[in-house]
Amino acid sequence: MEPINIEFFGYFAAVLTTAAFLPQLVKTLKTKKAEDVSLVTLIMFICGVSSWIIYGYKISSAPILLANIITFILNLFILISKVYYSNNIRS
Amino acid sequence: MEPINIEFFGYFAAVLTTAAFLPQLVKTLKTKKAEDVSLVTLIMFICGVSSWIIYGYKISSAPILLANIITFILNLFILISKVYYSNNIRS
Repeated sequence: MEPINIEFFGYFAAVLTTAAFLPQLVKTLKTKKAEDVSLVTLIMFICGVSSWIIYGYKISSAPILLANIITFILNLFILISKVYYSNNIRS
Repeated sequence: MEPINIEFFGYFAAVLTTAAFLPQLVKTLKTKKAEDVSLVTLIMFICGVSSWIIYGYKISSAPILLANIITFILNLFILISKVYYSNNIRS
């Protein structure tokens, strides 16, 4: 039973920390601004998530691998939206 | 050599995805607002990070464990700051 319990926490964590960025993306697209969202945080986080992808692959952890690939994509879209709307305000 | 390489990516990822939330906290404390930061994202993310702590403990992964404990603390402070400043605007 132990391995099932471990995998459960991994997948539960993976789903939550991945899905968590969807409301941020939706909010940014709706309000058309992400002024209060730190650009440095987004860039550092995306770099970190890329490293988690490599780590998850190396230790053969499916939850880490899957979660971080989707987290990477969502945060990339948040970053693109933030930069896009920030440029629109200036012009 | 292989285990050293694996741990390197784990710790590098851990440092980046943890330290990433520091600029967000500093920005929120400086600007005294986090209107554009999604409350749902923060709550879901904190719940997810809690599950990663359990998962990291269960698979005995020091990078996952350490990173998520600090990430949890930083995001809790971002959440508290956001709610605090949001209430200050209203009153």
